[in-house]
Amino acid sequence: MSTDNTTAQPGAADTTSTDVLIVGAGPVGLFAAFQAGVLGLKCELIDVLDRAGGQCTELYPEKPIYDIPAVPGCLAQDLVDRLLEQCAPFAFPMHFNLRAESVAEVQPAPGDGHARLLVTTDTGKRFDVAAVLVCAGAGAFAPQRVSLPEAPGLEDRHVHYAVRDVSRFAGKRVVVAGGGDSALDWALALRKVAARVTLLHRREGFRAADGTVAEMRAAVAAGEMDFVVGMLGALKTTGDGSDAALSEIEVRSRDRVQTLPVDELVALYGLVSEPGPIAQWDMDMRAGRILVDTTTYESSRRGIFAAGDIAYYANKQKLILSGFHEAALALRKAYHYAFPEKSLVHVHTSNNAALKEKLTHA
Amino acid sequence: MSTDNTTAQPGAADTTSTDVLIVGAGPVGLFAAFQAGVLGLKCELIDVLDRAGGQCTELYPEKPIYDIPAVPGCLAQDLVDRLLEQCAPFAFPMHFNLRAESVAEVQPAPGDGHARLLVTTDTGKRFDVAAVLVCAGAGAFAPQRVSLPEAPGLEDRHVHYAVRDVSRFAGKRVVVAGGGDSALDWALALRKVAARVTLLHRREGFRAADGTVAEMRAAVAAGEMDFVVGMLGALKTTGDGSDAALSEIEVRSRDRVQTLPVDELVALYGLVSEPGPIAQWDMDMRAGRILVDTTTYESSRRGIFAAGDIAYYANKQKLILSGFHEAALALRKAYHYAFPEKSLVHVHTSNNAALKEKLTHA
Repeated sequence: MSTDNTTAQPGAADTTSTDVLIVGAGPVGLFAAFQAGVLGLKCELIDVLDRAGGQCTELYPEKPIYDIPAVPGCLAQDLVDRLLEQCAPFAFPMHFNLRAESVAEVQPAPGDGHARLLVTTDTGKRFDVAAVLVCAGAGAFAPQRVSLPEAPGLEDRHVHYAVRDVSRFAGKRVVVAGGGDSALDWALALRKVAARVTLLHRREGFRAADGTVAEMRAAVAAGEMDFVVGMLGALKTTGDGSDAALSEIEVRSRDRVQTLPVDELVALYGLVSEPGPIAQWDMDMRAGRILVDTTTYESSRRGIFAAGDIAYYANKQKLILSGFHEAALALRKAYHYAFPEKSLVHVHTSNNAALKEKLTHA
Repeated sequence: MSTDNTTAQPGAADTTSTDVLIVGAGPVGLFAAFQAGVLGLKCELIDVLDRAGGQCTELYPEKPIYDIPAVPGCLAQDLVDRLLEQCAPFAFPMHFNLRAESVAEVQPAPGDGHARLLVTTDTGKRFDVAAVLVCAGAGAFAPQRVSLPEAPGLEDRHVHYAVRDVSRFAGKRVVVAGGGDSALDWALALRKVAARVTLLHRREGFRAADGTVAEMRAAVAAGEMDFVVGMLGALKTTGDGSDAALSEIEVRSRDRVQTLPVDELVALYGLVSEPGPIAQWDMDMRAGRILVDTTTYESSRRGIFAAGDIAYYANKQKLILSGFHEAALALRKAYHYAFPEKSLVHVHTSNNAALKEKLTHA
């Protein structure tokens, strides 16, 4: 990962050139795309999740939100849908399951050329841009991991945080740990291919749809799978190093400690957010958030801006409406990086005929 | 008008005590009232106009607005209606036809007391508050005046910018100048009491409803009133000083200069905005706008904040969405002036049960 100020040259096969890369397709990133369109900037969005919406969609789609100006009460998912509708006329590309890893300054060609930034993602795809606007909310979402010392050596081999290929679990003794929809859905699905599935949760109650819970209890009653109440106490392995295999897990509950034979552990404890690689981007940070100037929302690194919960300054409030303002102002400064020779005239959506046409006939 | 920092004592008959006075009930002022309610602050709003909405309602109610986040296209009046709905649960008093004239620091009572501000309005009504949030847009609206040297001496006597009492014009020769709905409506109405009404407009076309224009032309055809195309050239008077009366106006058009006999001139040229008395409030200003800090949106005068178009700082954009952010942050600082002994915890509308109840069952 390149985190220093060394220069880089774009030109690799999978490099996309645009004006602004928006990192994070939550509500603030989506509105930023709309604002970019209004200003005449091209942009692309990336997100580590598999769809737009960020926390709103991933963590609380059904939560009512009351403090969006002029929207006196809507569900988080509705807010995302409205923002998707608003930026749709510009049809900017959105790339999902993609994480921004590093950013490097690009040396301009002699004689020509404005300073550019080259962003590299975890798949190798790169973006050659005039500016980066980080709207990453609380950071990149990552699965909450098993906090046992034996876990790291088994991850991606016998300890899993997602199910990517069901056939991988055929004929295996599988423990699915967790109490949400995801854990129940996968336990039910895997029972059809696995030798035996055990659902492990710390209590009898679930944070899951009633129907799914009923289906799971019926499957347990029918002897198709097991349900155990308890906490993961320890992972026991056979073999050493990269050959180590899982053999048993120890489960602790209030009144006893039991051992379950297991080949594969699927831990679906939900997502946690973490600053991720952005924290290493050589910008001034405060507690995992990006310090920005409160007139341009630019970070200490030229051309990199932040808006929304990941931005930090004195009296910062984690309000979605603040993210909208921060993005709008950031993009006006970004415009000057994309088009240093032009002066940006104040754009009002309602008195620009071409723009109005686009927004009205989308 | 008191514009200095001398201290004042509240206690006059018509003094209202509240936490925050919001000056201007346009979109930003209305959202500010909602935010105040969310934070647990009491507030009252005042506006020089006769209803809420500011420029949106007064100047372009039918204009579509596209850049309000999550509201992908609504008319200006709809935006105001949504914001009125949003702040309605708090039922804060709104006072119309009231202009803030001056503000003075109030000496706290010995031993008790936090610094307070006393705002005096043009009717004498006063507000004793912890903070003032100015959301006055382009300033206070005022009628565009007749720009002739003779006009000031006749204003409020024979040169009028509004019709408050129709009977005042009974039996008089009246010239109504202007080309909008207001000029046409009043010309039509006054013809019923006046000796003669002449509508004066600089061209044949009007900025008025087609039906009103047709009604005016029919009244002219029926001999009930006159319509003259031309510009006001001069006002001729009889008598001197405060006894001066209007006798004739000179009207210039492309091909001739004519003289019309007249007793009363009603000039309805529309509204212009002007900073008004706020410009004299002893705050740092820039071109009629209030210079604010970009983390608290407080002016150079303690306890006076500004949000929306009237606020100024580097990279300021006249976007309604920026006003929303500015108001939200300003009120958090204002909270500490209202309740210096309390610390404000971050309020989210969706995880505060009492607030949620209020917003849901309004």
